[in-house]
Amino acid sequence: MSMIANESVKVVDCTIRDGGLINKWKFSDEMVSAVFSAIAASGADFFEIGYRASEKLFDPKEFGSWRFSRDDVLRKVIAKKPDSIKLGVMVDIGRVETDDFLPKDESVVDFVRVATYLKDVRKAVELANLVKGRGYESFINIMAISTVNSYDLSEGLKEIEAETDATAVSIVDSYGSLYPDDVKHLVDIFCKSLKTKKIGFHGHNNQQLAFANTIEAVQCGATFCDATVNGIGRGAGNCPIELLLAWLKNPRYNIEPVLKAIQDVFVDLREKEIEWGYLIPYMITGMLNEHPRTAIALRSSDKKDHYADFYRQLTTPECFK
Amino acid sequence: MSMIANESVKVVDCTIRDGGLINKWKFSDEMVSAVFSAIAASGADFFEIGYRASEKLFDPKEFGSWRFSRDDVLRKVIAKKPDSIKLGVMVDIGRVETDDFLPKDESVVDFVRVATYLKDVRKAVELANLVKGRGYESFINIMAISTVNSYDLSEGLKEIEAETDATAVSIVDSYGSLYPDDVKHLVDIFCKSLKTKKIGFHGHNNQQLAFANTIEAVQCGATFCDATVNGIGRGAGNCPIELLLAWLKNPRYNIEPVLKAIQDVFVDLREKEIEWGYLIPYMITGMLNEHPRTAIALRSSDKKDHYADFYRQLTTPECFK
Repeated sequence: MSMIANESVKVVDCTIRDGGLINKWKFSDEMVSAVFSAIAASGADFFEIGYRASEKLFDPKEFGSWRFSRDDVLRKVIAKKPDSIKLGVMVDIGRVETDDFLPKDESVVDFVRVATYLKDVRKAVELANLVKGRGYESFINIMAISTVNSYDLSEGLKEIEAETDATAVSIVDSYGSLYPDDVKHLVDIFCKSLKTKKIGFHGHNNQQLAFANTIEAVQCGATFCDATVNGIGRGAGNCPIELLLAWLKNPRYNIEPVLKAIQDVFVDLREKEIEWGYLIPYMITGMLNEHPRTAIALRSSDKKDHYADFYRQLTTPECFK
Repeated sequence: MSMIANESVKVVDCTIRDGGLINKWKFSDEMVSAVFSAIAASGADFFEIGYRASEKLFDPKEFGSWRFSRDDVLRKVIAKKPDSIKLGVMVDIGRVETDDFLPKDESVVDFVRVATYLKDVRKAVELANLVKGRGYESFINIMAISTVNSYDLSEGLKEIEAETDATAVSIVDSYGSLYPDDVKHLVDIFCKSLKTKKIGFHGHNNQQLAFANTIEAVQCGATFCDATVNGIGRGAGNCPIELLLAWLKNPRYNIEPVLKAIQDVFVDLREKEIEWGYLIPYMITGMLNEHPRTAIALRSSDKKDHYADFYRQLTTPECFK
């Protein structure tokens, strides 16, 4: 229905990076290559292919390639990268070392996104500046944003504003607990604190609001939106990129390659290998503003559909248990 | 997160009525009884148990009980109805006869909801007045609202306002094509035209927006919201009642009985019997503002996952086919 065509919005695909949280990034090279080709053909602007992490800190036997996203692997899998899309990796504070980054002119990576909790904003600033110093465009994601107070958030954002030249800073609804009015409140704080950065949004679908909250964020001023193919992602998953591209009505976007990738890759993946999407245990942790770890554990147990007991357990005060 | 507690909002469960569109209302008496008990225990305000239709017009061998919702069946299945919940049926214009309604004091039914297209508003007024004359509370649903123009809608609503004493008139996003800003536009029109009625909203989940659009409708002035257990409903389904009740934060609501019903009834129903929810063919008809019938047909065929072909077919002008 809506005829909005907001061409200032950029779309960041994080299908492999976020989807990999489900299966320790054990996606085949062929699968990742197919997803990249589909996303490049859709016109999406950024492709976050995985985490960059040190092989000294994580065992390559336990984790797939996209936990490390080494340059030599990327060069092999992304045979041809059109200029219309930028390729990047995410880094966690303390899980990557300086020598994990080649100088930009020796790398196929365009951008590096630093994931941080608000309490670690000083470390995030340092890491963003380190990768920027190596020549990469830098972004910052503030995780678990539903757990921080507005004053601390404003202060942290002011530090990012003053101390980095990150291109964008994103709100991450890690617990999938935000309602649209919460998103408005947060985007307003970001707009006030960040005068020289784009504002981004990364939703989770615990309450079927990842896409709706992304719409709300854009309508409040965000211009940098995360999404994944078919909404794949840990737990309830993310904002589906097919919905976001269709809504944006930017003529540069085309959802047909994404639909083809879903039918060719994601239908089987979901039926036979990994689970994501709206399921009651994730809904419960979302509505309670909790990390999904208890719901993930439940889904791996033989009580995976014991929803009422799970709800009662999480809502009973410790002293009554 | 959000602390809103909007106690003026009433919740209408239409699990059996709308879910029955998938399986011709062939739910067992035990299942319907269990769902009613869960919804009554949750504190929801209205329970729409099925359609009321004439057995002269539909073959009882082809359709289950909830296509007809005869009073004798309702009395058997709803053994005990608390005063806190009202029981009702939906009627379609032309599919019900005057003598299908006992006088209210001989019936267990509290309310009758008339489903209509805007073009048939005169007939809807007559039918609403007929059931009102028999003593029932009356509601009106305006279906396929994404296909009507604002002028016609205002005129039709003025007729309902002047000619009926329906308690509520609801916006029905039959195609699941509305975005939140469309909902705002429509609720504004309803608010201007209907001074003596409540305004309602019935969302469909083609674009994962049924719950978000319900939130938007409430924030714009709607106070009468449809929802179903686990979002069951034809095609992509509806607004999940567990999400809506959790959001409303009204202390009279309790989601635990709903979660129990999902684990006891709906997990198996979905895995073994019937399909609903966010699936790409429904997303496609939703974004194109079309009736889901082509998507439903695709899902029943051996091409059920041929999404890209389906999209191309629906978006190619007839003259190029």
